[in-house]
Amino acid sequence: MNTPSLSPWDETQARLRELADLDGVIGLAHWDQRVTMPPGGAGARASQLGLLSTIRHERLTHPRLVELAETLDPGDDPVKVAAIRSLRRAVRQATRTPARLVAALAEAEALTYNAWTEAKAKDDLTPFAGPLTGLIALVREKIDACRDGEADPYDVLLDAYDPGTTVASLDPMFTRLTAGLKDVLDRVKGLPQPPPLTGRWPLEPQRALHKRVSAALGYDYDRGRFDETVHPFSISVGHGDARLCAHLYEDDLLRGLTGTLHEAGHAMYEQGLPQRWRGLGIDVAASYGLHESQSRFWENVIGRSAAFCQLLARETNLTFPDAPVRPDQLFGALNRVEPSLVRIFADEVTYNLHIALRYRLERALLSGDLRVAELPSAWDDGMEATLGLRPTKLSEGALQDVHWSSGLFGYFPSYTLGNLYSAALRFTMEARLPTLWDDVARGDLSGALGFLRENIHDKGHLLDAPALVEEVTGPRDLVADLLQHLNQRVSEAYGV
Amino acid sequence: MNTPSLSPWDETQARLRELADLDGVIGLAHWDQRVTMPPGGAGARASQLGLLSTIRHERLTHPRLVELAETLDPGDDPVKVAAIRSLRRAVRQATRTPARLVAALAEAEALTYNAWTEAKAKDDLTPFAGPLTGLIALVREKIDACRDGEADPYDVLLDAYDPGTTVASLDPMFTRLTAGLKDVLDRVKGLPQPPPLTGRWPLEPQRALHKRVSAALGYDYDRGRFDETVHPFSISVGHGDARLCAHLYEDDLLRGLTGTLHEAGHAMYEQGLPQRWRGLGIDVAASYGLHESQSRFWENVIGRSAAFCQLLARETNLTFPDAPVRPDQLFGALNRVEPSLVRIFADEVTYNLHIALRYRLERALLSGDLRVAELPSAWDDGMEATLGLRPTKLSEGALQDVHWSSGLFGYFPSYTLGNLYSAALRFTMEARLPTLWDDVARGDLSGALGFLRENIHDKGHLLDAPALVEEVTGPRDLVADLLQHLNQRVSEAYGV
Repeated sequence: MNTPSLSPWDETQARLRELADLDGVIGLAHWDQRVTMPPGGAGARASQLGLLSTIRHERLTHPRLVELAETLDPGDDPVKVAAIRSLRRAVRQATRTPARLVAALAEAEALTYNAWTEAKAKDDLTPFAGPLTGLIALVREKIDACRDGEADPYDVLLDAYDPGTTVASLDPMFTRLTAGLKDVLDRVKGLPQPPPLTGRWPLEPQRALHKRVSAALGYDYDRGRFDETVHPFSISVGHGDARLCAHLYEDDLLRGLTGTLHEAGHAMYEQGLPQRWRGLGIDVAASYGLHESQSRFWENVIGRSAAFCQLLARETNLTFPDAPVRPDQLFGALNRVEPSLVRIFADEVTYNLHIALRYRLERALLSGDLRVAELPSAWDDGMEATLGLRPTKLSEGALQDVHWSSGLFGYFPSYTLGNLYSAALRFTMEARLPTLWDDVARGDLSGALGFLRENIHDKGHLLDAPALVEEVTGPRDLVADLLQHLNQRVSEAYGV
Repeated sequence: MNTPSLSPWDETQARLRELADLDGVIGLAHWDQRVTMPPGGAGARASQLGLLSTIRHERLTHPRLVELAETLDPGDDPVKVAAIRSLRRAVRQATRTPARLVAALAEAEALTYNAWTEAKAKDDLTPFAGPLTGLIALVREKIDACRDGEADPYDVLLDAYDPGTTVASLDPMFTRLTAGLKDVLDRVKGLPQPPPLTGRWPLEPQRALHKRVSAALGYDYDRGRFDETVHPFSISVGHGDARLCAHLYEDDLLRGLTGTLHEAGHAMYEQGLPQRWRGLGIDVAASYGLHESQSRFWENVIGRSAAFCQLLARETNLTFPDAPVRPDQLFGALNRVEPSLVRIFADEVTYNLHIALRYRLERALLSGDLRVAELPSAWDDGMEATLGLRPTKLSEGALQDVHWSSGLFGYFPSYTLGNLYSAALRFTMEARLPTLWDDVARGDLSGALGFLRENIHDKGHLLDAPALVEEVTGPRDLVADLLQHLNQRVSEAYGV
């Protein structure tokens, strides 16, 4: 960049806009890879993505940007303060990781991911054990390169996903939450289960239903699109373009719909981020945990509520008039609580127990207390102790998740942070919007979205997530909020 | 790039592979912009494309690559000779254009394109005249920066699209071709026209027909895809991923189908390029003219032949059994010759007269002999003199094409070069494949594609297009070939 005439602050913004544009292009390359790319494009795409990451790293660690990050004076404008803090954090993380290590990690992740798919298909740890062990060694190397003084090594990873969250705050949270969740489970033990929703829902009308329901939430199709993929996801391809990908099941209406509510929550967060801060680097989500709070809010707090089941029953019956459903039927089916082996299909209560197990195991893998060879039995023992179930296949046990094979150590807590934030947002919203649930039942979700737009989305990364949530909700006991939310749901669904 | 341990030749290849990856990403960003992007993404996409072009220019003019281009010894390996010649040409074009001019051109093109859409919609030159005049001044500046000694200024532009072609070769070609085409037109003047194909063809089955016919040509759907857009196009998104976009008309089956044949021809060329030369910069089409020869070959030489009409009638009648068509009906409708105002809907004979007019006018605009304000009347006079028709609207006159508004001066001759090459390939192929037309009539197009794969596609940019075509066809009179091809078609279609 040849910009001799710009002020240091303007030059910084120009460089940050470039990084944002690169992120958009990287998002597009990933979206296309998973949605539209023909099989023949796979090799070129891997190479293109590698190059884009390299360019991003080059530009983020460019000596001039490093110099600007170090020397800019933030003054006392809170926007500028946040922008420079965010820039310094990004530059520090990038410059501390040598280019050689960035490349080695990328290569090891690709290798380990392939080994994972093979191991999972064969139900055999062998092909995966070596690559994962090697990848863990590289992650440790990265931690050592980035670590400040006596910080817990795991905090380095958390800093990349959820700045402001540390082991010191997660440990007691998981301990309390686990105990409370077990109490919730005890409340429903032995009670008759609400029946699941069974039937067949042809895909073409089901697709229209997904689009109508996501549009009813407030997902803006002029700034997004709806596609179908094996695993639902959402992704931003630049300001004004946040895409949603769903999976429809002909024999399971609710599994598909809750997935779409979840992804619409993510995508609506992206659609609500502050464009006016483009070029400041804080026009992005405050953290992955806060991102998950938005998806879980729409999937769970709203999507599994009795009020929303009114809307959902109306829309479903419009689409499938031959097999009408009642709101209470939907509510029961959406709020069954039952220990199960696979995280992504878990109910709202047991979900966080799955996360607690992963948090414990990945810390042990990174510290060296647990070897990869011991992972399957440690996993199975953990599941048995927590949920009373023992996996019989690795694909429903230690190999079920993609995260570790892709180097995503430190990400799992974001899911539980999302659930915690979403419950705190629920109670705050109920206090400020007295007609919330009546509005939802009538099909008017603009109050809920407006609240999130104003208080969360529009704030971008002005504050780290814990501070931003506290600014919205006031000081609250997040664990207590989540447990209260779950206890209320269980009371309604099980009549206890 | 930090590659101290690579040999100069290996380092060059690594840098060229990066440029190829960037081209793939730029292709993807354009494809998405025209096919899948929601309206809200437009602003971010423009910015992303600007950045990608900047990065491409930075990397192509990187001092180390310039040094490698100057100092590498090609030796006598023809592949290496071609690779280094191609690299030197690209580096020379890029380094001679200052970054400031690259940016100014990009900005002026965006501005002029928008002005063109406005002017065309209003049928008023006014909003377009100023921006186009400014853009022409920048194009002249670029020509001056890139021009070698006494070369014709227009040759600088040709060098970017069709290296090896010059004004000195185009001028006499257009003179002879124009005279010959007027003779062909005279032959059909006053004869009864073959009737057009009229009817209604519902879009869903028509879509399946497009896919089946393009697959029958040999377009590989594992390395491509079919989408629909306002203007048909095809684009490469990296080796192994060449995409085709079609437009279907419910009331004009043949207009849509010929467009798909045309784009499949382009995309099959991309699919056949030599992957083994990835990183050499010659794993690409030899020229735009040769690219057009591939699209025109499938659209015209094959697609409008009596033999192909056998196949097309069978496929069409399978898809639309209620309104069967006869091969001779299709052949007549596909080979009507009739002067018309709009190039993209022109028949095979008059098409090149449209190009000859544009070639003359754009040279006059660039030399200053013609001012933009005089363009509409010069255009209308030219049309009247050439085809005996006078436009009554700018949108069917001087404003019909997008090219000039996008800075694509010097591109039009590529279309006629494509037609010339395709006729020479026809007669060469007929001589070498005696069963060609019988095979086509039976629906077996593998001989034709195999010939092009082996002799054109697989050669990448080993030679410039004129030399490559001559290597395949031997020395031939291309103008005579094209006129012979057209005269034969007219004889068959009009029974003269």
